[in-house]
Amino acid sequence: MSPFTFFFIIQLLITLLPHYPGNGLSPPAKPNIIILFCDDLGYGDLGVYGHPTIRTPNLDRMAAEGMKFTNFYSGSPACTASRYALLTGRYPIRSGFSWVLYPGSERGIHPEEFTLAEGLKQAGYRTACFGKWHLGSTKREFLPLQNGFDEYLGLPYSNDMIPPKHPDIALLRGNDTLELNPDQSLLTARYTEAARSFILRNKDNPFFLYLPYAMPHLPLHPGEAFAGKSARGTYGDVVEEIDWSVGEVLKLLDEQGLSANTLVFFTSDNGPWIIKGEEGGSAGLLRDGKGSTWEGGMREPAIARWPGVIAPGSLQMEQSSTLGLFVAALKLAGVPLPADRVIDGKDISPLLRGEKEHTVANMPFFYYGPHELHAVRQGPWKLHIKTSSQTGKQYFEGKTPLLFNLETDPSEQYELSGQYPEVVGQLMKLVETHKEKVEQEGTFYR
Amino acid sequence: MSPFTFFFIIQLLITLLPHYPGNGLSPPAKPNIIILFCDDLGYGDLGVYGHPTIRTPNLDRMAAEGMKFTNFYSGSPACTASRYALLTGRYPIRSGFSWVLYPGSERGIHPEEFTLAEGLKQAGYRTACFGKWHLGSTKREFLPLQNGFDEYLGLPYSNDMIPPKHPDIALLRGNDTLELNPDQSLLTARYTEAARSFILRNKDNPFFLYLPYAMPHLPLHPGEAFAGKSARGTYGDVVEEIDWSVGEVLKLLDEQGLSANTLVFFTSDNGPWIIKGEEGGSAGLLRDGKGSTWEGGMREPAIARWPGVIAPGSLQMEQSSTLGLFVAALKLAGVPLPADRVIDGKDISPLLRGEKEHTVANMPFFYYGPHELHAVRQGPWKLHIKTSSQTGKQYFEGKTPLLFNLETDPSEQYELSGQYPEVVGQLMKLVETHKEKVEQEGTFYR
Repeated sequence: MSPFTFFFIIQLLITLLPHYPGNGLSPPAKPNIIILFCDDLGYGDLGVYGHPTIRTPNLDRMAAEGMKFTNFYSGSPACTASRYALLTGRYPIRSGFSWVLYPGSERGIHPEEFTLAEGLKQAGYRTACFGKWHLGSTKREFLPLQNGFDEYLGLPYSNDMIPPKHPDIALLRGNDTLELNPDQSLLTARYTEAARSFILRNKDNPFFLYLPYAMPHLPLHPGEAFAGKSARGTYGDVVEEIDWSVGEVLKLLDEQGLSANTLVFFTSDNGPWIIKGEEGGSAGLLRDGKGSTWEGGMREPAIARWPGVIAPGSLQMEQSSTLGLFVAALKLAGVPLPADRVIDGKDISPLLRGEKEHTVANMPFFYYGPHELHAVRQGPWKLHIKTSSQTGKQYFEGKTPLLFNLETDPSEQYELSGQYPEVVGQLMKLVETHKEKVEQEGTFYR
Repeated sequence: MSPFTFFFIIQLLITLLPHYPGNGLSPPAKPNIIILFCDDLGYGDLGVYGHPTIRTPNLDRMAAEGMKFTNFYSGSPACTASRYALLTGRYPIRSGFSWVLYPGSERGIHPEEFTLAEGLKQAGYRTACFGKWHLGSTKREFLPLQNGFDEYLGLPYSNDMIPPKHPDIALLRGNDTLELNPDQSLLTARYTEAARSFILRNKDNPFFLYLPYAMPHLPLHPGEAFAGKSARGTYGDVVEEIDWSVGEVLKLLDEQGLSANTLVFFTSDNGPWIIKGEEGGSAGLLRDGKGSTWEGGMREPAIARWPGVIAPGSLQMEQSSTLGLFVAALKLAGVPLPADRVIDGKDISPLLRGEKEHTVANMPFFYYGPHELHAVRQGPWKLHIKTSSQTGKQYFEGKTPLLFNLETDPSEQYELSGQYPEVVGQLMKLVETHKEKVEQEGTFYR
């Protein structure tokens, strides 16, 4: 064993020992919450999810110290709608959003939406967002500061919505333009530094840090220290820089003695942009990518760390989602869910504690775009009512409905509707009930 | 942290501490060598390689305590030829083998081949093989005991070569029939028990244990304790039983204080049998499977553990192979390579120690069947001269040559021969030189 390894293990013990013998049942009250949110990262793009040439030692270690999810979904296969789902706990259809907003879009997140940041502020949290917002154009009312965040630094929408096709893009600090068309190769480092500063300034009170990275969305801009370093090419460079950033955040928490009181959750908004060739990511063994309700579009790498609550090296195969992360975060902070609207997520905090009795599936419905319900999942079964692919490809000759067993067939290769007509019937009924329910509830903010 | 986790970490420290401060440069002389060899396991089929529904806690932990390889190749995309390569360190073309032998085959491993077991016996090792042999029919001269092994228990060929299509299959002990048509659901447990017994009987002298599991080759027969347990179905059941078996071996080594003196290496003979539907495995993000020289056919999960020599949690991205494992095993035992024949493998022991200067690639040539050279790899580049798929599918419309960069494009999706004609030329030259060399060397045992 190398001296490095020896000291790593000692370090791990020092970090974890004060919490022994934790039983995972009594997490600290009002823990800090950190959500590290990638853009277009694929299910297969991290070492711990099987990528052969992208090095992600910090995320691999985060999984070793925490929990790796293998059935975790984002709320949409596209950017705006997915961020909406994470921050409101609701299916994107509740907002009526077009699935990606543009710089000129008139719409944005409705002032009466209840965001995760607004909820956590009620419980005394300091809140910050550093990165891509994308829940409205640059209109003041749509920006983070008017939606629950105390601090903001970032691009308000996607990093490819830039001149010459689009107007100048502003790097905002709070509501104000800090720079126009900033050097994108500095973004990951700047967001990371803002995160470090925020943590240090708030170590004595509960805080919520939301860090939606600009990368690995195209155009890919690695920092100077990472450019040309990954065997995987530029895509690998930007993912390895994100891995570094995660490492910086975890290291700071450890150094400041905050780890035992901080839930850190890492995931992505949607699957990889596979039509972009080598500049797009990989969904691993899952089918298709971003912009599709096949698994590759919405199932995400997801890793949680919380020493003393989450057992090291845990594997979580239960179906869960960003909508459920919203509910868990409020619950951990002691904030009641708003009673005046529908929240679609189900609390995932029992999953974090490894409790076995959790049976309520999160995010059974797969929406494509704002209104189209494309698929439903119950237990192992997934039924596609409509299908779409980013590549334009019609798998299974475009026939629907299509039934798959995602446990025995995670790659959605073996279509089973003919063999299990009763399952098809049962899932079709779920779809109808859900559609009627959504129509009746009618609690949209548009 | 749970009490379990706490004691696991303490256990890990107890196991590793005696070797601190190992510098990885002076491995023990004549270490025990254990090769755990699956049949048709895919690159994507273990937790640590990204499978979402197969639980492999022992293999995941083996990787955490040891080294995970991401560019490790078997010697052939088919069974007999791959086992030949592992046990002789030579490309299958050196043997002239048909790539799979059948019960009625007249041929088998040539008496003058120099096997890994024969080499290690020269150094005083006790040697055992428990599992699938497949280097000849049941003719005595081809069996393990006549090829360097002191002990044997197993089926002499594939578990699907059974009545009524084939004659009765014998479970052999040594050269003798122990049972005809044994209950296959007991095989993994029986091989594991034989392995435990062998280790216990030989703990005071160097030993070589070769454990070629019958599974997950079809027909799938999980043991009673595993049947119906995996979310992945029967395929998952048999892989989870192999994971259990690996855990049993590692646990025994730890209990007996043998771990620091034992290199354990886990891999598979070839990629997954993808045409078998849900009963076949997954190559993860790699293309195709068994019976093909696309990456899915020959790149394998590979995990090595050797506390005190291999740093815990190591990631090995260098290209290496079972042919190189042959060379490393002899080198570690202090046995010179035979001077009277060509050995194609290159020593991978520097890779185990994490040495950076290793630059000699292992297994640059991909053979399909006995004679056909299909592809060559140099650095990131792979050139397909011919292609074949188990599914009969002609990717890229069957055009050749096809050039891929496996580092930036591990899934072999983006064909680059038009963009890099000079690389194509260089690799074609390598192919020609290799073909001439093999023809001149002419050291075949047929």
